[in-house]
Amino acid sequence: MEKVRLGPRTLFYPLPAVLVGVKVDERPNYLIASWYGIATSKPPVLSVALQPVRYTLKEIKEQGLFPINVASADMAEDVDYCGVYSGHIRDKSQIFQPFYGVTETVLLIEECLVNFECIVLHSLDLGSHTLIIGQIVETHIHESFLTHGKADPEKIDPLLFIPGTRQYHRWGEVIGKTFHVGREV
Amino acid sequence: MEKVRLGPRTLFYPLPAVLVGVKVDERPNYLIASWYGIATSKPPVLSVALQPVRYTLKEIKEQGLFPINVASADMAEDVDYCGVYSGHIRDKSQIFQPFYGVTETVLLIEECLVNFECIVLHSLDLGSHTLIIGQIVETHIHESFLTHGKADPEKIDPLLFIPGTRQYHRWGEVIGKTFHVGREV
Repeated sequence: MEKVRLGPRTLFYPLPAVLVGVKVDERPNYLIASWYGIATSKPPVLSVALQPVRYTLKEIKEQGLFPINVASADMAEDVDYCGVYSGHIRDKSQIFQPFYGVTETVLLIEECLVNFECIVLHSLDLGSHTLIIGQIVETHIHESFLTHGKADPEKIDPLLFIPGTRQYHRWGEVIGKTFHVGREV
Repeated sequence: MEKVRLGPRTLFYPLPAVLVGVKVDERPNYLIASWYGIATSKPPVLSVALQPVRYTLKEIKEQGLFPINVASADMAEDVDYCGVYSGHIRDKSQIFQPFYGVTETVLLIEECLVNFECIVLHSLDLGSHTLIIGQIVETHIHESFLTHGKADPEKIDPLLFIPGTRQYHRWGEVIGKTFHVGREV
């Protein structure tokens, strides 16, 4: 099998589609942001890439706080709607049911699988996007996704997104427990 | 359905398992690094979190270059082996077939689905991990994963990893095209 070079490309990243929202003129507005990741575990820190032209980014920089709302696969149409239409054209304030957590102002979405409230630690302007790096201060999850008080991946169904090819996916089969299957090699 | 608070947690991130390798005493050594993400698209920039205790991180900082090798689901056992055993205990140099690209020194893995060669732009010490942010200079992909010269997600089978719950997964079903399904809402 031959390998080929495609030039610098951000390919093949099945990432959970997440929604980041802020209030615009007192009305909730949401955008899709799938370019995010875990930056460290102690303390728990996330990163998310946002376009500088977005009102959302300005608001996050000003507030020093931001949400990450992880969408479920059955939210695909509503999530996509947030990506198709700008808040200037369509009012997105009624799509989801908002709620607030410990920070009191960070806009969280009731329908989402998991919600993170984060405090901005760093902001890096890297080109087409600004990378916001923030510490998680609280995590919210539906009670039904827990087993003995712990988050259970068998019970959730996140919406996955592939940059580049622009497709939504579900995830599938469990292969095995990490740091275990390799012992047999 | 009731939402509960779990405290600050990096939950529910199905991320592709990737391998980062450097040469130690002239022999290839690999570690699993699943905490990474896309930081921006123009230019194409990735981030990856590595533990400061790792020799790999020291080497990457010194060289100013690093690889991201995206593993396939059928590599689960070999990938896990790299996570189970330290390079001090087991020689991992023979597990994969290495190759080199435009940078000539960045350690790429033939068996992986996609390989990225990156130049370090930023390095942020955030606690248990250092976040390395780097610009992709070249992307390598098996020819068989292309359709009309473009990367085709239908043809690949990445190994997904869930931090927190520590399970490997395959991904599954396609739901639809992004910025399209939401038009019907």
